Amino acid sequence: MLPSYVQRKTGFLGAGEDYEQARAVLVGLPMDYTVSLRPGTRFGPQQIRYISYGLELYSPYQDRSLAELSYYDAGDVFLPFGNVTESLRRIEEAAETLFAAGKFPLFLGGEHLVTLPLVKACVNHYADLVVFHFDAHTDLREVFEGEELSHATVLRKVAKLLPPRSLYQFGIRSGVKEEFEYAARETHLYLEEIFPALHQAVQEVQGRPVYITLDIDVVDPAFAPGTGTPEPGGCTAREIMEAIFTMKDLQVVGMDLVEVAPAYDPSERTTILAAKLVREALLAFVK
Amino acid sequence: MLPSYVQRKTGFLGAGEDYEQARAVLVGLPMDYTVSLRPGTRFGPQQIRYISYGLELYSPYQDRSLAELSYYDAGDVFLPFGNVTESLRRIEEAAETLFAAGKFPLFLGGEHLVTLPLVKACVNHYADLVVFHFDAHTDLREVFEGEELSHATVLRKVAKLLPPRSLYQFGIRSGVKEEFEYAARETHLYLEEIFPALHQAVQEVQGRPVYITLDIDVVDPAFAPGTGTPEPGGCTAREIMEAIFTMKDLQVVGMDLVEVAPAYDPSERTTILAAKLVREALLAFVK
Amino acid sequence: MLPSYVQRKTGFLGAGEDYEQARAVLVGLPMDYTVSLRPGTRFGPQQIRYISYGLELYSPYQDRSLAELSYYDAGDVFLPFGNVTESLRRIEEAAETLFAAGKFPLFLGGEHLVTLPLVKACVNHYADLVVFHFDAHTDLREVFEGEELSHATVLRKVAKLLPPRSLYQFGIRSGVKEEFEYAARETHLYLEEIFPALHQAVQEVQGRPVYITLDIDVVDPAFAPGTGTPEPGGCTAREIMEAIFTMKDLQVVGMDLVEVAPAYDPSERTTILAAKLVREALLAFVK
Amino acid sequence: MLPSYVQRKTGFLGAGEDYEQARAVLVGLPMDYTVSLRPGTRFGPQQIRYISYGLELYSPYQDRSLAELSYYDAGDVFLPFGNVTESLRRIEEAAETLFAAGKFPLFLGGEHLVTLPLVKACVNHYADLVVFHFDAHTDLREVFEGEELSHATVLRKVAKLLPPRSLYQFGIRSGVKEEFEYAARETHLYLEEIFPALHQAVQEVQGRPVYITLDIDVVDPAFAPGTGTPEPGGCTAREIMEAIFTMKDLQVVGMDLVEVAPAYDPSERTTILAAKLVREALLAFVK
Amino acid sequence: MLPSYVQRKTGFLGAGEDYEQARAVLVGLPMDYTVSLRPGTRFGPQQIRYISYGLELYSPYQDRSLAELSYYDAGDVFLPFGNVTESLRRIEEAAETLFAAGKFPLFLGGEHLVTLPLVKACVNHYADLVVFHFDAHTDLREVFEGEELSHATVLRKVAKLLPPRSLYQFGIRSGVKEEFEYAARETHLYLEEIFPALHQAVQEVQGRPVYITLDIDVVDPAFAPGTGTPEPGGCTAREIMEAIFTMKDLQVVGMDLVEVAPAYDPSERTTILAAKLVREALLAFVK
Amino acid sequence: MLPSYVQRKTGFLGAGEDYEQARAVLVGLPMDYTVSLRPGTRFGPQQIRYISYGLELYSPYQDRSLAELSYYDAGDVFLPFGNVTESLRRIEEAAETLFAAGKFPLFLGGEHLVTLPLVKACVNHYADLVVFHFDAHTDLREVFEGEELSHATVLRKVAKLLPPRSLYQFGIRSGVKEEFEYAARETHLYLEEIFPALHQAVQEVQGRPVYITLDIDVVDPAFAPGTGTPEPGGCTAREIMEAIFTMKDLQVVGMDLVEVAPAYDPSERTTILAAKLVREALLAFVK
Repeated sequence: MLPSYVQRKTGFLGAGEDYEQARAVLVGLPMDYTVSLRPGTRFGPQQIRYISYGLELYSPYQDRSLAELSYYDAGDVFLPFGNVTESLRRIEEAAETLFAAGKFPLFLGGEHLVTLPLVKACVNHYADLVVFHFDAHTDLREVFEGEELSHATVLRKVAKLLPPRSLYQFGIRSGVKEEFEYAARETHLYLEEIFPALHQAVQEVQGRPVYITLDIDVVDPAFAPGTGTPEPGGCTAREIMEAIFTMKDLQVVGMDLVEVAPAYDPSERTTILAAKLVREALLAFVK
Repeated sequence: MLPSYVQRKTGFLGAGEDYEQARAVLVGLPMDYTVSLRPGTRFGPQQIRYISYGLELYSPYQDRSLAELSYYDAGDVFLPFGNVTESLRRIEEAAETLFAAGKFPLFLGGEHLVTLPLVKACVNHYADLVVFHFDAHTDLREVFEGEELSHATVLRKVAKLLPPRSLYQFGIRSGVKEEFEYAARETHLYLEEIFPALHQAVQEVQGRPVYITLDIDVVDPAFAPGTGTPEPGGCTAREIMEAIFTMKDLQVVGMDLVEVAPAYDPSERTTILAAKLVREALLAFVK
Repeated sequence: MLPSYVQRKTGFLGAGEDYEQARAVLVGLPMDYTVSLRPGTRFGPQQIRYISYGLELYSPYQDRSLAELSYYDAGDVFLPFGNVTESLRRIEEAAETLFAAGKFPLFLGGEHLVTLPLVKACVNHYADLVVFHFDAHTDLREVFEGEELSHATVLRKVAKLLPPRSLYQFGIRSGVKEEFEYAARETHLYLEEIFPALHQAVQEVQGRPVYITLDIDVVDPAFAPGTGTPEPGGCTAREIMEAIFTMKDLQVVGMDLVEVAPAYDPSERTTILAAKLVREALLAFVK
Repeated sequence: MLPSYVQRKTGFLGAGEDYEQARAVLVGLPMDYTVSLRPGTRFGPQQIRYISYGLELYSPYQDRSLAELSYYDAGDVFLPFGNVTESLRRIEEAAETLFAAGKFPLFLGGEHLVTLPLVKACVNHYADLVVFHFDAHTDLREVFEGEELSHATVLRKVAKLLPPRSLYQFGIRSGVKEEFEYAARETHLYLEEIFPALHQAVQEVQGRPVYITLDIDVVDPAFAPGTGTPEPGGCTAREIMEAIFTMKDLQVVGMDLVEVAPAYDPSERTTILAAKLVREALLAFVK
Repeated sequence: MLPSYVQRKTGFLGAGEDYEQARAVLVGLPMDYTVSLRPGTRFGPQQIRYISYGLELYSPYQDRSLAELSYYDAGDVFLPFGNVTESLRRIEEAAETLFAAGKFPLFLGGEHLVTLPLVKACVNHYADLVVFHFDAHTDLREVFEGEELSHATVLRKVAKLLPPRSLYQFGIRSGVKEEFEYAARETHLYLEEIFPALHQAVQEVQGRPVYITLDIDVVDPAFAPGTGTPEPGGCTAREIMEAIFTMKDLQVVGMDLVEVAPAYDPSERTTILAAKLVREALLAFVK
Repeated sequence: MLPSYVQRKTGFLGAGEDYEQARAVLVGLPMDYTVSLRPGTRFGPQQIRYISYGLELYSPYQDRSLAELSYYDAGDVFLPFGNVTESLRRIEEAAETLFAAGKFPLFLGGEHLVTLPLVKACVNHYADLVVFHFDAHTDLREVFEGEELSHATVLRKVAKLLPPRSLYQFGIRSGVKEEFEYAARETHLYLEEIFPALHQAVQEVQGRPVYITLDIDVVDPAFAPGTGTPEPGGCTAREIMEAIFTMKDLQVVGMDLVEVAPAYDPSERTTILAAKLVREALLAFVK
């Protein structure tokens, strides 16, 4: 037998090997075919896992360690490149399985369109669902370049799956006029600054199940350059971590972290930030 | 009026402004959604145009200048990202228009799947068509990850559009066993080396119309690193230029140059090589 | 005729094709031969245009869209590389033409020395001109390495063209002692922080015509790494946008945005920020 | 003889040629063999020197110039790669020589382990020494992966050389639980924010000699991406400069600046920041 | 249970999960602390595995597929960073285990010093061992910068473990004079060109067990830029593959592939070449 | 005094400190203001020196070591950025001093225009001078974009300084038609391939003094990507080294190596090749 210091790393830092016992499950969604600017988020999940080994298990912010937690990294959903419909079907089925099993799923994108099947599966199990959406872009179009299924339309479709005005949008700083008009009627949209809006929203949704969708481009490109459609004027790395801590006492039932594109991240700080957000989210939301 | 040295550059080096009179037409096809490895070829056409201004109009290899030629750069086909079917339809329609107008079209990819609608349109006008295929990969699968329409199946579909055994494949060095078996029966496939196979093929197809599809990854990644699926062991920059010159006296009726991915090309030498190949192809094939 | 989805992009996002009717005009000035550190700003104008297509026409900050505006992108001034005198002459002539035609010109550098001929032309038409200068560097030397015409002397020469103490300098954090002494006597220089100094300056210059020269290095290299002489300690992307909005009600008669160097910008966030500043400036200053 | 404008640059910007007269001495320590993540800090000293020529001698922040100062750049300690013990011995001997000669030494790393021999030599001459430690990481482990001598254990060993609770740690945001527990008992550790803790610490240590060890990763990766173990959530470039100014009136007797890794710094802003910190430190601490 | 298309990738392309049955075993050796130029080869093994998924299982060169082979990827030897002695002990122990179990081990470096413990273990089991060494550098020093254990001395120590003149060196183009003099007496060293020397060597060693150590820098930096000490003038990617095929009928008993440094490989072609060499070596040497 | 292992590196690998005794002298010429494509060669000389420490003093190709040679590195000519006339004057004066002192000067560019003052000074001392020119580009224009002094006109001006038809041009593969016509009448120009033309040229010029100007872009961008105007189709690294060896027995009286642009050389292989060519040239030409 090989000596014990010959080791195989699989999955995210600290992930266990037992799916059944795991309270939380990580799943990668390497889809990026409907994006309009820079593709390449398909490599996000794998790079986030890989880079996570540079972090500690322990968070001094929360005084809690991943070692206290039971979670499993299921790997990636294998997708037929270019087939949007079948890709979304598989993603929904995987999500459905996890929500049905009572797991806390944390999905790693991939492009933002994956949030549609994820919320579909989630709302199936949590009818009164609220979605907290962190993003630079509204993603609220009716159609985008002739297509209904697109990273630019995804939150509009999500909003329609939810109870009225149950979508909260933070950090937004780009979109077309119609999207902002739609938001004024149908969602809670906050321009640019995450705080203090988030504090108030947390009060408003007490007692309801919450799904979080976090597009890494909500963070300023100075702190997270490795993304498909960087938009100057975003929050800092500290602020997005603070956002996680602020939502700690909510009943968060699932989350995705999308749009990390390693090819535009030569210093690797975007994937490191993403990995740190995964750690903090697991520690904050998985009880 | 502004002084004459205030100038707007549009299109490839030396392109004229008159579509009707133009003998040749350049069209960009920024599609990259069915690729399985590194996407990003959608930025190929624009970067090839941009970098072309670093070249001369004159080719010392052929002692001929783009200034002697009338060609037009039509820009890019605007594509609905993620919608493969509609994208291929538009590309075919654009190609059909050009072949019908008797133009020599030169298409800039984008991913290799675009070659399918291009050859469809071409064979419509040139029934006895031969296709010369330069590539590291066979691209001859029946299906790829469950999909029939993919960069990995494109040449098999192309072969079926042509007269029997009218596909010639050069520089190939990757594929699954079934593809090579298919090739042994149905195409002319040459492993690794372009020469002397090309010399013989040129003899064989005298008198027939020829369409050329050139995947930049036929060239070794040392000379063309900026591509989606680099495969070591390819030809040199000199050899691929020599290949163009070797086909000079054939009746070449159209061409595509695909799979240039600027994000993996920090020194820009892949786009420079692509631009140089465009220049040499125009000078060699447009009489 | 080619289908309508075959499109040629020319110029900055949303630019129209009619120079005569245009209220504003963009001109690129690809000059970078007097810089002392990292050259390469000559590629700034073209990359800013190219990247602008990743933005929306609509600004949620100002609730206004480029679609409501008539502006023209004239391309670049063609320059004889290395000939400083002739280059400056051409730039001045182009600027003179635009001011004479009553256009709002927005110039994209290129190095900062281009501001000298631009202000020369401007002051010709607006005698009581004020210049607002955003920069990390004073650029106030008498001579620089034996040369009078240099990116490091340009604002001193500009100051002399204006009425007394009509140069306001914001964000400054580098220079030699003599420059700061000169500034104490002859200009309004504010160290490091743009606010609240800018608010006061805006009050002081009410009613006078204002020309804005914005060196991208006023922004911290975290937010704008792609520049020739990055200087840590600058403002954020949000702050420089806020600066634009703060000057909205002034009578701004022209502007330049200089020193964007794409080669040092692998994540492209500097050019994206520059393009966004162009959009916001057009929306703020072109009535 | 060659004309006087043929020049050889050696050492950091403005360094003199006379070691004996010099009040301060720069020494590079290109060691990086015990790091656990990204090596490459061995190139830090040379790149910091090289890039320093893009700065001015004069600091507008402090209204003082390096030209007023006498300092010498001794080059690098030549190290036997991979031999940790001998490397530390040489570094200590070099430091000992400098403290014995009454110089103000400023060391450029290299990895953080070098601080151990540096403080050993320093405490030899300044028994009541206080260490101010700026870092993202606690570096307080007892052992790290079986090793006692490591970048992750260095500050614990340093703490033991000092009088009780004479280690002050600022900007910390990563470590294992045991380190934070140790810190609670044995050091002064401040989570995340440098201010206002630093102001209070400066008061507490009045009259005692202070050694500063500054790991560049205390700064957020947005401002200093070029480092071995980037950790999101750090201070800005402005804040770390402000920290230097805040310590100006202390009796600072030596300093090191470590963990600059040029390979992860394509825009060079990390080395520029480091060079600027060297300038400001020399101007602030060398009287 | 999760759908079957949710998949976890571990190890190199096509590796099985059964160590006991495996004929060949891959082990990563992420050591890089004695290198004198650019460190970073510690990331080599992980990147080679990751990138291997872009290749096919099937080799058209050898008409054989990894699917026909039983091999296991054991992961990496966990090493105490900076502790050379303990690191080499662990590597030797791991190698000893594999040779004792009758496996064909293929080691992925890491720096070249790892070859010393590997050959030590190998020669223990194959007394009449020959070593074939592909490298740009002789690596034959007695001591290097005062150290006996170094990447620059490793082959000299290896030579002493073998029967007289049983080290064959190909592609060499750098070293000090003493090394070439030593080689003239004690090894078979071939300057620059691998062929035809390799053909002859293959004849000479028929019937003897052969260990192959392949430093990726034997290949020219045009084809393999991602390495610690690139040396212009090397072989092409085709030639190094040809070298593998040439040794096919030898009794190869183990191999290492070292010095792949991903940080200097932005186009990823060095790791792709390394992965391809691993595939071809497995197909050629594992019967 | 500091221990002897505290060391300062200045100048190229192995350079001595005594100008007077030195047989050869290196001088950097960091000029790049007349280039039309990518500037940045001003950083060439410094990076070539820096990277040279990764090489050995000994050349196995020539079995000779830099240790046997006496040469001095004078540093760079300090240039007024943007002032072409004064820059050329200084360069000529520096060259004149060196030729007058009987030194063998080796100049490191910088852009190719520097060759004009260098040859002017050289021909002053060697009336029967021959120039061997290695380049991808003819550089034979009469004027370039209205300018007589430009990197694109430099060799035409050089040709006029020499005896009739004393300019030999190797590796050329780009230019306008007029240049090739001029070359046909007035120079010896060889398209693409260096050999066998160089062998014959060496025969023809026996007994005459030879100056070598080597533009690094004569080498293919695969081997030397870090240059201003890369042109595919060039020679390999081996071939350019072979060219040096081929000229070994000529009476070479001076040399320049120009157009190395580090910003486009992320793997550093262009500067490494340049440094190796400097070593080989010194060993071949300095007797």
